[in-house]
Amino acid sequence: MLMQVYSCFSFAASDDFLKHDIRVKPGLDGLGALGDAGWYTIQAILLVNNFKLPKTVTALSGSVLNDAGIVLSCGALFDWEDGVNATIYCSFLANLTMEITAIGTKGSLRVHDFVIPYMETEAVFTTSGGGCVSEHKVMTELSQEACMVMEFARLVGEIKNRGAKPDGFWMRFSRNTQLLVDAVKESIDNNLEPVFLSGR
Amino acid sequence: MLMQVYSCFSFAASDDFLKHDIRVKPGLDGLGALGDAGWYTIQAILLVNNFKLPKTVTALSGSVLNDAGIVLSCGALFDWEDGVNATIYCSFLANLTMEITAIGTKGSLRVHDFVIPYMETEAVFTTSGGGCVSEHKVMTELSQEACMVMEFARLVGEIKNRGAKPDGFWMRFSRNTQLLVDAVKESIDNNLEPVFLSGR
Repeated sequence: MLMQVYSCFSFAASDDFLKHDIRVKPGLDGLGALGDAGWYTIQAILLVNNFKLPKTVTALSGSVLNDAGIVLSCGALFDWEDGVNATIYCSFLANLTMEITAIGTKGSLRVHDFVIPYMETEAVFTTSGGGCVSEHKVMTELSQEACMVMEFARLVGEIKNRGAKPDGFWMRFSRNTQLLVDAVKESIDNNLEPVFLSGR
Repeated sequence: MLMQVYSCFSFAASDDFLKHDIRVKPGLDGLGALGDAGWYTIQAILLVNNFKLPKTVTALSGSVLNDAGIVLSCGALFDWEDGVNATIYCSFLANLTMEITAIGTKGSLRVHDFVIPYMETEAVFTTSGGGCVSEHKVMTELSQEACMVMEFARLVGEIKNRGAKPDGFWMRFSRNTQLLVDAVKESIDNNLEPVFLSGR
């Protein structure tokens, strides 16, 4: 059973990015580091929680906003109750780091490059449990971006050529990720009050 | 400059431990997992922050307490202001995990066995920055417990044989660790309100 997850994605954006990129403009990608880097961390915590939505989302103190109110760095807590929770950290202001640490009752998982893999055709993760620590490698013939485009083309093909209905998996996953991204922003805007998700 | 730290120490205590150990008894080691496992995580975040005390300490929702009110699992946020913060997780209820992830503006640090090293005479940590990821090994002739006893004996010897005054470093480090442990407990007892440390 999962107990705790930490996920972070940060990168040190250039001065030019911090002044001119669409991700720091209120009228464009107004969710800033949360909508960009934070999106991946929230996908990670949903993934290790079997896509289950938490009960509450609370932004952590210490967010950094630019003059236009856009998030440049923030953290948040996601609480599933019964002692199961996750924290994330996302930032445009810190060294490139992309970690997942997931701790269960009987085992733990670590991934160090879950957003942009160090090796294009190799995904490495480490598990520990029962006194053993093991490194695992998954080899792919193609980079993850190519796999993503192939999957997207397959999904479109299913609808276009075979009359299938849209696959609900990615829709739900994307919607739930967005729901949590928006909840973190709501908590930041609301003086770090917890946002309750039941019924959403 | 440091931006964010995550540190966790958890282990899956046996049923016997959870019923009878002094660490789960209010009249004995009443700080539970926080005073035991949490102590190390707080040392870690102080260490990477040059021993500087944070401005505020806030327990995170999702603590697990036993029937006597002793912490079996909890998390907390430590905020140094200016966007620098740390989160910890400590637990008697989860698989053995002992991580430090420290993220600075120009580099990151990872340690996976900072409490009980996997190898007795070898300390391994990973740094990344400037596009490079490097693993570092520090070899010692003796285990860390032996080094600790030697350092303790040296400190006592300095006072006993050379008339030295007590070395302030370890006193300050221990006191500040205890201050933060107590602040997390205060926040848990106080409905997760932040505890302000200025002047303590």
